[in-house]
Amino acid sequence: MDLLSIKDPSFLKGMSNKELEALSQEVRQFLIDKLSITGGHIGPNLGVVELTIALHKCFDSPKDKILWDVGHQSYVHKILTGRASEFNTLRQFKGLCGFPKRVESEHDVWETGHSSTSLSAAMGMAIARDLKKEKSYVVPVIGDGALTGGMALEALNHIGHEKKNMIVILNDNEMSIAPNVGALHNILGQLRTAGKYQWVKDELEVLLKKVPAVGGKLAATAERIKDSLKYLLVSGMFFEELGFTYLGPVDGHNFENLFDNLSYAKKTEGPVLLHVITKKGKGYYPAESDKTGTWHGTGPYKTETGAFIKPSKTPPPAWSSLVSETVRKLARGDERIVAITPAMPVGSKLEGFASEFPDRMFDVGIAEQHAATVAAGLATQNMKPFLAIYSTFLQRAYDQVVHDICRQNLNVFIGIDRAGLVGADGETHQGVFDIAFLRHLPNLVLMMPKDENEGQHMVYTALNYDDGPIAMRFPRGNGIGVPMDGHFRKIPIGTWEILKDGVDAVILTFGTTIPMAMEAAAIFEKQGTSIKVVNARFIKPLDKKMLISLLGLNIPILTIEEAVLHGGFGSAVLEFANDHGYYHSVISRMGIPDQFIEHGDVGSLLAEIGLTTEEVVKRLTLLAGKKQQRA
Amino acid sequence: MDLLSIKDPSFLKGMSNKELEALSQEVRQFLIDKLSITGGHIGPNLGVVELTIALHKCFDSPKDKILWDVGHQSYVHKILTGRASEFNTLRQFKGLCGFPKRVESEHDVWETGHSSTSLSAAMGMAIARDLKKEKSYVVPVIGDGALTGGMALEALNHIGHEKKNMIVILNDNEMSIAPNVGALHNILGQLRTAGKYQWVKDELEVLLKKVPAVGGKLAATAERIKDSLKYLLVSGMFFEELGFTYLGPVDGHNFENLFDNLSYAKKTEGPVLLHVITKKGKGYYPAESDKTGTWHGTGPYKTETGAFIKPSKTPPPAWSSLVSETVRKLARGDERIVAITPAMPVGSKLEGFASEFPDRMFDVGIAEQHAATVAAGLATQNMKPFLAIYSTFLQRAYDQVVHDICRQNLNVFIGIDRAGLVGADGETHQGVFDIAFLRHLPNLVLMMPKDENEGQHMVYTALNYDDGPIAMRFPRGNGIGVPMDGHFRKIPIGTWEILKDGVDAVILTFGTTIPMAMEAAAIFEKQGTSIKVVNARFIKPLDKKMLISLLGLNIPILTIEEAVLHGGFGSAVLEFANDHGYYHSVISRMGIPDQFIEHGDVGSLLAEIGLTTEEVVKRLTLLAGKKQQRA
Repeated sequence: MDLLSIKDPSFLKGMSNKELEALSQEVRQFLIDKLSITGGHIGPNLGVVELTIALHKCFDSPKDKILWDVGHQSYVHKILTGRASEFNTLRQFKGLCGFPKRVESEHDVWETGHSSTSLSAAMGMAIARDLKKEKSYVVPVIGDGALTGGMALEALNHIGHEKKNMIVILNDNEMSIAPNVGALHNILGQLRTAGKYQWVKDELEVLLKKVPAVGGKLAATAERIKDSLKYLLVSGMFFEELGFTYLGPVDGHNFENLFDNLSYAKKTEGPVLLHVITKKGKGYYPAESDKTGTWHGTGPYKTETGAFIKPSKTPPPAWSSLVSETVRKLARGDERIVAITPAMPVGSKLEGFASEFPDRMFDVGIAEQHAATVAAGLATQNMKPFLAIYSTFLQRAYDQVVHDICRQNLNVFIGIDRAGLVGADGETHQGVFDIAFLRHLPNLVLMMPKDENEGQHMVYTALNYDDGPIAMRFPRGNGIGVPMDGHFRKIPIGTWEILKDGVDAVILTFGTTIPMAMEAAAIFEKQGTSIKVVNARFIKPLDKKMLISLLGLNIPILTIEEAVLHGGFGSAVLEFANDHGYYHSVISRMGIPDQFIEHGDVGSLLAEIGLTTEEVVKRLTLLAGKKQQRA
Repeated sequence: MDLLSIKDPSFLKGMSNKELEALSQEVRQFLIDKLSITGGHIGPNLGVVELTIALHKCFDSPKDKILWDVGHQSYVHKILTGRASEFNTLRQFKGLCGFPKRVESEHDVWETGHSSTSLSAAMGMAIARDLKKEKSYVVPVIGDGALTGGMALEALNHIGHEKKNMIVILNDNEMSIAPNVGALHNILGQLRTAGKYQWVKDELEVLLKKVPAVGGKLAATAERIKDSLKYLLVSGMFFEELGFTYLGPVDGHNFENLFDNLSYAKKTEGPVLLHVITKKGKGYYPAESDKTGTWHGTGPYKTETGAFIKPSKTPPPAWSSLVSETVRKLARGDERIVAITPAMPVGSKLEGFASEFPDRMFDVGIAEQHAATVAAGLATQNMKPFLAIYSTFLQRAYDQVVHDICRQNLNVFIGIDRAGLVGADGETHQGVFDIAFLRHLPNLVLMMPKDENEGQHMVYTALNYDDGPIAMRFPRGNGIGVPMDGHFRKIPIGTWEILKDGVDAVILTFGTTIPMAMEAAAIFEKQGTSIKVVNARFIKPLDKKMLISLLGLNIPILTIEEAVLHGGFGSAVLEFANDHGYYHSVISRMGIPDQFIEHGDVGSLLAEIGLTTEEVVKRLTLLAGKKQQRA
């Protein structure tokens, strides 16, 4: 059929299983073709083709609420709800979002991006439905990886207690982003093999009937054994213990099995957990045979071979590699260094560290809160924990950073990856709040390097710093290709660096916005105006000595940051100036305005919010005018 | 014995159970007497007298690490580690902290205050121990309530996976702060009664031997039944499933039972969970018979009767009551209003709401993340959720506020209780970061009322606001006793109010710091200087119109807030002034400096950090000088 002609999922109602199987193949080919050009989360989506079709056939969206946890597996759902024609723009500026988005469709009832939120949201929806005395199904679809996130476990506990009708689909692909970790994963492993025990159960029933009757006491005992058979043999006892009716495991690529179980689930009172086994990358050999998570999300590739289309020239090293490999080098000389990642060993490029120091590497699963406090616990024992975490996911561990790490002033090195705009993943993943949510925390040092060479020195500085927590933010993507020093050196805490001298104005900036500052300065230079550019690499503490001397120059100061303006670095400069009595300084700030920033290539996003060389030039011109007015 | 003479717990080693029982009674009487004067967490501590003594006899602190989750149950530990003489100063300014504190004692290896952190910290300590090849025990003590917190569940999952040696003491008193909630609680309830099944187990072993031999297949089946007996009958299967050796339940007030189980736990490889049943308030009738949590933490009381010592005159209504009772009134006319609390129905004074609207009240347990996202889920269905949460605990839900509530611009009303300094609970509980961690979030309205009358109108405003999330912060303690209007009215979003006119300077402030501003203004008034005082009740959005007119006056502006200065309200004013080209305004900020604020009465704390009328007068005097210099 023509996928582009789909308006909504109602067409599925009349289709036979055979037709649905044919449709699945079309959807799969569509995804393989489209994503080979745009890139995207191919593996997770190929895994849920049949499951998504089955859900939209069994339920009536949007009356019934289907919630996609994490949300990167919602492409099939987008196709079935009338958005196939937009896949050419997937994850592009002003294009189709890679996650559920309420403005795109009434079928996207809950927006996601961060994991483990769907069960809590589903609980809210189920409460609302019951209070309004409406009839509908609430169906969160959550992966086995996302289930280890603390809030999902909080939700399981509460849902099991409240006993509201809800059908939780556990999409168990034996791998979330990286191979799964944790005891819960082992339990799921046991459940996967549990199907074979059906015959044991039948046999036991026979056996129990043979038990000699020896009075009331023993009869009661036998009764208990019968009650417990479901725990023992069909298993699922973990979820049953929590108050769910456990169904499955069921083959997530088999329509008959799916429909049988979904029908049963619809008839069951109280919360149901339907355990569905799927295969990530199903039906596309390169993705299906992936063992490491490479095909979780990809750039463009050749459909025939699965070969990734490489950039025409080799880029400088990725920031994640630079940081993790530097930690690895330093770990050779310092046994106290331990690395911790919340389920991102691949994204954080910790594979090398893990293979060299398997005993000192801990992937704790999708569990940011736990990860941060494990690091704190290590630090109390004079270890040197490196917490590798994305800026956007560090939001999950805010309280642990406040209460456990900063309050106890523990020597934890937080490597804040993907700081600033991340691009295609969009508003759920932009790393733009970290300065604003960290800068007000006592004891914390927060820095950002100008390039990968300074980056390696900052890692060295952090792992040799003994005065409390220290965090380095660094961007998504690659370095800028500078030569790397052969020896590490410490960068004195709270020191900035003058990159270019000048007498007419000052730009204070750091990290990714340094190039636009330098370019703007070069433009002014040609006009005879000289701009001083400062690498304000310590966001906290500020370089107080330099800042006082700069304020004393009585020339305009412009701050630039790829982070939110409210409470950001520029505010720190304003605060400092006012606290030190420089009430008359002309200080202006550029950064990210008070809005969530959508998906798209970083260049387009920066242009949209006015973080470009041109805008820097405009702002400086304006400020120069201000200065002249005062004179 | 003389408790004041205790230096460290080593004296316990040689004591008999009988002597320990006598000691327990002395400790108990000491606590009852001391806390009757100072107040404190009497219930939790009376419950763990024997458990704490047993732990310090069985383990060698501080070589062995005992971690007190939440930490308000650490008083007995403090007595046994040489701090009995300091109990006269408990929770007072510069006195003994009510929570573990590393500067107080080497036996306090982990600081707590917020719940559910101990397992993660213990994991860090166990990793460090094994990497250093040291021998020691790591013993986190966690309550049944704290176990429902997401990070504790994340930790259980990881600990079960890693299999490191650790002895988790589950202190199950069937009540955390409020009666417990959740499926996990029900499981614990089952475990409590499981002791009686020991005889069933013995009997079944006999029964199984009687099963007729019918070939290999059935024999294997019988073997499986035997394996599973421990799950079935001694239970603990939830924890066993997660990878723990489950021991218990054991009577936490019986030394013999405790020692038997602790000895066994010490010999067991891998993680052990020892389930200890204790009775909150044990040995003191008023506390032991408490069903609602009243005796969790108290002020002074008469030891003979347990009668609380009331203040000499009736105080104005508590802020928590005012807010929750106003929500209750409004809920009578709006069926969409639903209240959510993460385990704080008593603290948040939601009992009245709960009894009138039992179907619309959800205590989700210690699960702040889940609480926030349940609220978000409700809001997607056009409900009006009221999330009642303390400022310090909202830190746990930061990402949910960002990603689920603000990003989706959902109509959630967040009632931020205990905002500002909270006093005796100290640095883990001060509600001083909320402005800094919320102000940078797009879509959020953040406000604080000047008194309880404005407070009721703000609650009304919030529950009638349809443009996205709205939060009201309000302080711990009581209102100031103003008359209450009989009808509700809406306060226009983003409007401030001039409380006192003046032409020489402006004070912008809100909430608890308004009185000191008014007092300072009155002092200046006598000297012929007139100060304008503005109730800046909207922290976000600012009253742009009024602020522009104030900036246009070209007189000094002083901002005052009981919150951290970095990224706070004062910074918002600075940002606004600079963004609008008011580069030359004299703006100065008063608030909480960049340090964690310890425990003590709020008055002493404010004096220590310079948030007093006198300091306001000083600052204004200084600013007036600045103004004159410019003129």
